Amino acid sequence: MFKNLLDIQNLDKATVEKIVDTAKKFKSGKLSVNMPDKAVCLMFCENSTRTKLSFELAAKNLGMKTLNFECSTSSFSKGESLEATVDNLAAMGVNALVLRDRTNGIAAELAKNIRYPVAILNAGDGNHAHPTQALLDFYTMLEKMGTVEGKKISIIGDIAHSRVARSNIQLLNKFGANVHICAPSYFAANDFCGAKVTMHTDLESALSGADVVMCLRIQRERLENDFKLPVDDYISGYQLKSENLEKFAKKGALLMHPGPVNPGYEMSEELFKSERAKTILEQVTNGVYIRMAVLYLLLSEGAAV
Amino acid sequence: MFKNLLDIQNLDKATVEKIVDTAKKFKSGKLSVNMPDKAVCLMFCENSTRTKLSFELAAKNLGMKTLNFECSTSSFSKGESLEATVDNLAAMGVNALVLRDRTNGIAAELAKNIRYPVAILNAGDGNHAHPTQALLDFYTMLEKMGTVEGKKISIIGDIAHSRVARSNIQLLNKFGANVHICAPSYFAANDFCGAKVTMHTDLESALSGADVVMCLRIQRERLENDFKLPVDDYISGYQLKSENLEKFAKKGALLMHPGPVNPGYEMSEELFKSERAKTILEQVTNGVYIRMAVLYLLLSEGAAV
Amino acid sequence: MFKNLLDIQNLDKATVEKIVDTAKKFKSGKLSVNMPDKAVCLMFCENSTRTKLSFELAAKNLGMKTLNFECSTSSFSKGESLEATVDNLAAMGVNALVLRDRTNGIAAELAKNIRYPVAILNAGDGNHAHPTQALLDFYTMLEKMGTVEGKKISIIGDIAHSRVARSNIQLLNKFGANVHICAPSYFAANDFCGAKVTMHTDLESALSGADVVMCLRIQRERLENDFKLPVDDYISGYQLKSENLEKFAKKGALLMHPGPVNPGYEMSEELFKSERAKTILEQVTNGVYIRMAVLYLLLSEGAAV
Repeated sequence: MFKNLLDIQNLDKATVEKIVDTAKKFKSGKLSVNMPDKAVCLMFCENSTRTKLSFELAAKNLGMKTLNFECSTSSFSKGESLEATVDNLAAMGVNALVLRDRTNGIAAELAKNIRYPVAILNAGDGNHAHPTQALLDFYTMLEKMGTVEGKKISIIGDIAHSRVARSNIQLLNKFGANVHICAPSYFAANDFCGAKVTMHTDLESALSGADVVMCLRIQRERLENDFKLPVDDYISGYQLKSENLEKFAKKGALLMHPGPVNPGYEMSEELFKSERAKTILEQVTNGVYIRMAVLYLLLSEGAAV
Repeated sequence: MFKNLLDIQNLDKATVEKIVDTAKKFKSGKLSVNMPDKAVCLMFCENSTRTKLSFELAAKNLGMKTLNFECSTSSFSKGESLEATVDNLAAMGVNALVLRDRTNGIAAELAKNIRYPVAILNAGDGNHAHPTQALLDFYTMLEKMGTVEGKKISIIGDIAHSRVARSNIQLLNKFGANVHICAPSYFAANDFCGAKVTMHTDLESALSGADVVMCLRIQRERLENDFKLPVDDYISGYQLKSENLEKFAKKGALLMHPGPVNPGYEMSEELFKSERAKTILEQVTNGVYIRMAVLYLLLSEGAAV
Repeated sequence: MFKNLLDIQNLDKATVEKIVDTAKKFKSGKLSVNMPDKAVCLMFCENSTRTKLSFELAAKNLGMKTLNFECSTSSFSKGESLEATVDNLAAMGVNALVLRDRTNGIAAELAKNIRYPVAILNAGDGNHAHPTQALLDFYTMLEKMGTVEGKKISIIGDIAHSRVARSNIQLLNKFGANVHICAPSYFAANDFCGAKVTMHTDLESALSGADVVMCLRIQRERLENDFKLPVDDYISGYQLKSENLEKFAKKGALLMHPGPVNPGYEMSEELFKSERAKTILEQVTNGVYIRMAVLYLLLSEGAAV
């Protein structure tokens, strides 16, 4: 049953395939829908540009009504709980809530506790999950390579604080990819809910023969206050450049990044400005289609998975 | 003449009945309209969730364009008066302004001073009035009881700072209800524009035989800075619980709350989570239909009262 | 080629005439369009009411989707550049970006550096340019006088910090008006890209025989921190009043102001409240039509200049 989109663990392969297939139909223009009776509320309690606007545009492309919930000037300041607030939104006629928050697991917790039916879409919770990002990354890989099965997919950078990495690792595992991760000790992690990954601490072995190289931003907003990032060390050891990409990865390897990119840190200025980095914007384009697919499948009875 | 919705005093019974009747038609699906030529601007200079989003959804359900006016980043910071700002909005083609502000009487004052025609809807001004809340409460009572005439309706809690209480008292008086209020001395009030109320200081007599029990939130944001709320005293004397509701109120009495609820304060956690408290969310649902009715009647020439 | 609206210098006369002509058609109801496939993103990094809402309403009047980009809670806080952010918006399917920012020349710079096609509309950059304001002022003058050729148009006040003045001066010059400016030394300027103006330091000579009197707000937010405005001096020497307008300007001279007005400073309370000042709101009305025209011409292939 596909009633919410909370994380990747609880998403079965058939549902993932249905989402990707629907996104493909939207992108090709084979499917076009108008659902003016549906209302989507965007509740982003952490800074966001691309995810929020991508969801908003997706809903509007489907002809849905959108509401922006302002966390800072809301009833939260009057002591109302998240659950009670969402019950109120549902009672008003809101059909789907897109939630981003700093608290791990909040979307799943919310989905359990609400009284009124409303579809909960997790748009990023702490360093736990970011399912639509993993889905759009998966879709982009399928567009480029047809399959991820048996492919070497290397995720480089701040794994520790990355919900994108966690969701990608779980999704790619389900579909038989060989997932490699590469991070210095201070950004390493191993809490992937049992998903198989090969860990690297040196960039060369992680890049070697990779079909896909996914570079992550350093999540400065989630670093401990007293942690001092060894910037020079990070750049010399882990920065992705055209040079190391050409030298070690498979020829034509797909370069990905969930954005925003901080050129000069996790990726060199030169690589960021190269033709090759345009695939990062293709991810963004696909993000809108994936979110249209998810909203459509969750809110359209006929189309439900 | 129904050109603005400023308060309850100046609303005649026929207009109230027309609004309720129109809301009923929207709720039952007997009336459905599309008014893409109309534009509604939401100007909320105090925190709000349900009222703002309820108005926004109401306007969108009618197919109207909505604009959000951001008080903090607006021309107010450049020294422009509210009247001049609203004249500008009207000159742009805005047809209705939904205004919430901390200043008592600001909506009525504004309606007198603008040069261009625009319908002003008061969405709460200080502790003065909140007419759509009173209308949606009235509508909810009619749905449950058919009439309010001769019914004992008890409003419990922070009366002093509550515009909801004032607007409800006035409206219920017009329609022949027996309105009772109950508050400790520090939350008592008697400025109800001549409306008849029976005042209580003990909860038991207020609840006794009540058909409707309306519980109010403590409006912490409107308390004097040097006022120290005697929390334990308030809870022991005035908190609504299943127990006191069952024991004193009429069997099946309607439980209401304008929201947001602060469980553990004006209402017990246990009552808030009970089946019985679901009527609070029915108020929220009806709020959207009442606001659709008001916007429709104000902006549609054929339908005007 | 009309692909962006960045400033007035690079706008040829034919394009200006096409924009004005299209605005006139929208205002008269002769042209009505519905473009639900187009998406406009509003990025206002400086306070704004009328310009932002005017653009938003213009886009909605054309049936376009609108997105609000929140500068303060955006990816800018994660270190992303403006160019990269706009590339992301374009990759999502945004067709036009309306940008206001404190930095002179930022819109033109942006238009050069983006990778993906998106129309850039400058909604005010520092004290450099505000092209839609100049266009709507021009349109208002044409409505009232048929032509600006040979007319004496006097712009009074804080010229130094005004992008409105700069854009108006350039546009009016193109069309053969006699542009006069009047300011005290601390608000004077002469950087008008070669446009011909007659400078005055006394109000009487500037007003004398004027067909149009355009009054400017003191841009307090752009004054140097250590500058102390000689308020009394300014008011006695440069404040516009019914009295000096009647005495010196041509009979029936058109009074204009880009808004917001600070009555009691650049314009007397009494003049601001007079019938005569209503033309200031006509500018606001025309602003929506001008912005509809610009968005339509930029985003509609068939209609492109």
